[in-house]
Order: sequence, then C-alpha cells, then structure tokens
Amino acid sequence: MTREWVAGLRVVTGAGDLLDCNRGLIKNATGYDLRHLFVGSEGTLGLVVEVDIRLTAPPEPQRVMVLGVSRFRDILAVLDRFQQALTLSAFEFFSELALEKVTAHRKLARPLSDQAPFYALLEFDASAEDKALGAFDTCVAAGLVTDGVLSQSDAQASALWQLREGISESIAACTPYKNDLSVRVSRLPAFLDGIDDLVRARYPDFEVCWYGHIGDGNLHLNILKPDALPQDVFFERCHEISPEIFARVAALNGSISAEHGVGLLKRDFLPFARSAAEIALMRAMKAVFDPAGIMNPGKLLPAA
Amino acid sequence: MTREWVAGLRVVTGAGDLLDCNRGLIKNATGYDLRHLFVGSEGTLGLVVEVDIRLTAPPEPQRVMVLGVSRFRDILAVLDRFQQALTLSAFEFFSELALEKVTAHRKLARPLSDQAPFYALLEFDASAEDKALGAFDTCVAAGLVTDGVLSQSDAQASALWQLREGISESIAACTPYKNDLSVRVSRLPAFLDGIDDLVRARYPDFEVCWYGHIGDGNLHLNILKPDALPQDVFFERCHEISPEIFARVAALNGSISAEHGVGLLKRDFLPFARSAAEIALMRAMKAVFDPAGIMNPGKLLPAA
Repeated sequence: MTREWVAGLRVVTGAGDLLDCNRGLIKNATGYDLRHLFVGSEGTLGLVVEVDIRLTAPPEPQRVMVLGVSRFRDILAVLDRFQQALTLSAFEFFSELALEKVTAHRKLARPLSDQAPFYALLEFDASAEDKALGAFDTCVAAGLVTDGVLSQSDAQASALWQLREGISESIAACTPYKNDLSVRVSRLPAFLDGIDDLVRARYPDFEVCWYGHIGDGNLHLNILKPDALPQDVFFERCHEISPEIFARVAALNGSISAEHGVGLLKRDFLPFARSAAEIALMRAMKAVFDPAGIMNPGKLLPAA
Repeated sequence: MTREWVAGLRVVTGAGDLLDCNRGLIKNATGYDLRHLFVGSEGTLGLVVEVDIRLTAPPEPQRVMVLGVSRFRDILAVLDRFQQALTLSAFEFFSELALEKVTAHRKLARPLSDQAPFYALLEFDASAEDKALGAFDTCVAAGLVTDGVLSQSDAQASALWQLREGISESIAACTPYKNDLSVRVSRLPAFLDGIDDLVRARYPDFEVCWYGHIGDGNLHLNILKPDALPQDVFFERCHEISPEIFARVAALNGSISAEHGVGLLKRDFLPFARSAAEIALMRAMKAVFDPAGIMNPGKLLPAA
C-alpha cells in the first residue's frame, strides 16, 4: 500500500521542468496523476526533490509467531488458514539453510527445538491472539505445521523478527546471486514447485537460500557461491539459468523484480515482465520527460 | 486509498495496444507503473477493459455521531480533537440549509432538538466509542459543539448517514451549480473563511448549500437556482465567480476537481490546478497513447 502514502512529489524532469505532483492532497481528480509514474521509475524520468508522506496511526501492540513447516507448498495452506481467521500484518518465510546462516551470523537461538525444512513468520495485532492460536491448532491437526512459538513480550517478538530480517546480511559473505520474484499468491504453489526443482537440478553443487515476503507473493531466491569458485565463473553459471527462471515467472504472469528494481542487472530481462507495447510506451514516455536522455541513462530500459 | 486497490488494469490504448498493467501483483518494480496514469484519465488515453480489484477485510461494527457546530471553522477544531483521540473512518459535514433540504425531501427526523448552523457526521469503530465520547466532552467543554447524537443501533447509524448521503439528490430539483474543491486539511480554515465571504457577497440572493468530505479536505459548494431565474442566466452568473473561487483554490495549492473529474465543464479551468509544464506533459502523453486523438476527444485537456 506504500505508494498511496506519497501524497505529493516535487520532481525536476530531464527537460528542467519543476513539477508539483498532487500538491499533498487527499482528493484530486484533475487529469493524469504523474506521482505514480515517477515512483519506481529509477530516476530515468526526473529527479525527485521533495516528497510529502502521509502519516498513519501507530499499530496496535503486535505478536509474532514462528512455525515449522515440512513442505514448501504447505506454507501457502498455512497462510490461507490464518487469513481465514484473522488479519495478518506480515507473513514471511525462510528455509532451514537461511535459519542456519542467520543464527550463526547473529548468534541467535533457534526458534523451535526441532529443525524443519521451512519456517513461516507471522505478525498480527495482540488482540487477535486467540484467533491466531485457533488457526495454529487447525494447522497442526491438518499436519501442515510441526511446531510453533508465540512471542510473550515485545523483546521476544523483536528477537523472532531478527531471524528473518538478519538473513540478507548473514549471507552477504557468500556473494549471493539474488533473484527477487513475485507472482499472484494464488499462483505460488505452481511457481514454487517448478522453480525449486529447476534450481536443484541445475545447481546440485550450490546452496540455495530461499526467503521472502510470501504473503505478498514475493520470494527471494539466493544462490550462494561456494568458497572455492571464482566470482565471475559463479555469476556466469547463475546467469545461464536466469532466462529459464524468468520464463517460468512470465508464464505465470509474474514479476522478475518485485521490489528492488531493474537497473542494469535486470534491464535486458525486462521483456519477461513487460510486453513489447509497454516497453515501447515506456521509451516514448522517457522521450517526453527526458528528451536529451540525461536522466540515469542506460538504466531500466533495454536498447531498442 | 482507493487507487491502491486496483491491482491490475487491462487497457486498450488509442493506438490499439492491449496493455496488462501490473498483472494483479502486490509487488512489482519493473519500470513505469501505468495503472495510475489510466485511473483518472477520463478515457482520454485508452479504454479500460478489465480491472483486478483487491479485496479488503470487512470493517468492524461502526458507530455514527452527528454534532451541531456553531461556526464553520470550529468543524476543523472538532476534527482535530477527535483525530487526537481515535481513528475516524469518516468525517463529513453539512450546513443547516443542506439539512433542511434533505429532511424535507426524504421525510427524515432532525438529528438534534435544536438547530445549528453546521453539522459534523463522524463514523468510527464501535470499539472506539468511549474514546469518541471523551473527545465529544472536550469539544463541548471548549464550546466547539452545541449538541450531539450517537447511534444506538445499526439502523440508527444508517438513518444518520441518510442525512448526509441524501443531500445531493434532495437539491437536484434546485438545479445546483456544483463545485468540487479540495485543499490540504491544514489549509481549510483559511480557505473556508475566504470562500464563504466571497460567495455571500456575490450571491446575496442565492441559497448556498455546503457539504462534503471535510476530513479529506474536500468541499462541495452548491449554489441553488432560485425558482424564478432561467437556467442559462443562473449558470452565467455562477460562471462569473468561478475564476475567483478557483484562484483562491490555486493560491492554497488545492484542487478544482477533487473527485468528480474535469470533463468539459472544468476543462478550461485546468490551469488553476495544474501548471503549464504539467499540462504540456499531459498533452505529450496523450499524443503517445492516443496519437490519432480518438479517445474521448475534447475532454479534460484545454486547447493548446
């Protein structure tokens, strides 16, 4: 929902015009809304010089739950059962490998006494705790969840969050090759099965570290470099599989860059996520806002 | 927040391209987001043929409160006190004249035993009722509110809402000249004082009916046609003052069309709400998406 909190945006375009987009208003229906065109344009249309951000009410006290899950696609059945019972403020997941990396790096305790192949992390209002415990019981009864822990204090909630938030930093030393993929939540089961098989078959010798915002349909697939392998050889091998991964994303009408943007690394893969007509329109809009091509040149849009 | 619920938009442009904008995804950072460009473009760029709307959780049971307020700008002090105490799901207002029209037209009971020049209608979660009653007490103690009523059932909440929702229909017979204005909420006091004085001075013989979504900074200023006056003479007199009203909106960086769009009626006033550079960019974008100018021609954009 975050884009909607940008109530106003002042931008200098590539042509040197200063635009005052939406003027910080809540309601405004006076023609084309340029705000959302600049948000996510990676600086290729203009330079954002000022932003009005709308404030929101502080959240209620939150509870965090971490669950052990045996099978990748069961995570989605767990999501469904919890969403039927209550409103979640977060639903994240990570694999056992990700947990091993983060507990070692940050010297954290494991959340559950037994290992599980995957873990789900849920956050919700403290007032919904009974509903969450009810959903937990139905998940255990259905064999979807092996074990779970519920935060008993804000400090413990924060400690559980570290297990998810510390992952990216804890694998940085492994020079991960990162993918930031999303599909509609309803298409995640089909997507997960295909991708996991593909990666295991093609990289039997690489560690693959999965985690992400699975409640939003957004998965981070991190392939970790073996210590002995030179970085350029590693990246070259990873690049080989990218078109196959992106083709599966495209077949499910998903995104090859869910939250981190296109830049240079994903630029030539943009046709997996946007049609030829859309890319042509993006080029034409770039020409309107930045006729001399001086705004972040070379980024985002593949060469025509 | 409504735009953010449009998760996907399929559009046929004026050039005949079928675009699949955002693909129904929650997270997607693959270049320019065209969704928001089409929402509110009044059909001038393309024809929307399919929309994905995200569902939201049903709201908690709601309570409705109607308050009598003596002075226009006190409504904003009331808004502030309630917002300090709780989260409001609606904050509307209407004038005594609007109340007279709607109670006569729909044969409704008046909400309070005494008349007040203005009324505020508030809606909030039933669980916040105590906080709302506390805020009410502070408003009465500060002399901001003369009286109030709180819904005791869903039926009564619905009856109170009719007092606001029925206004537009109840003045339709008076052939109102409508303005749909917004400014930032913080600028409403300065805006209200100026506009009310202006309208009273220029139209001493016309009834002026104020109501609107004041919590969003959005006011509907309806000037009612006296029965004896021919419609063309009435509209001509109203048109005379529009540039003065819009100049005050522009001085406060507001919107001359908060929620109803520009179309033909407001088209030539667009420069009060959008800069020359923005209008030039809008024309250039129209040329990109609709090179032959076949999409809702003549609407929204003033002639160059």
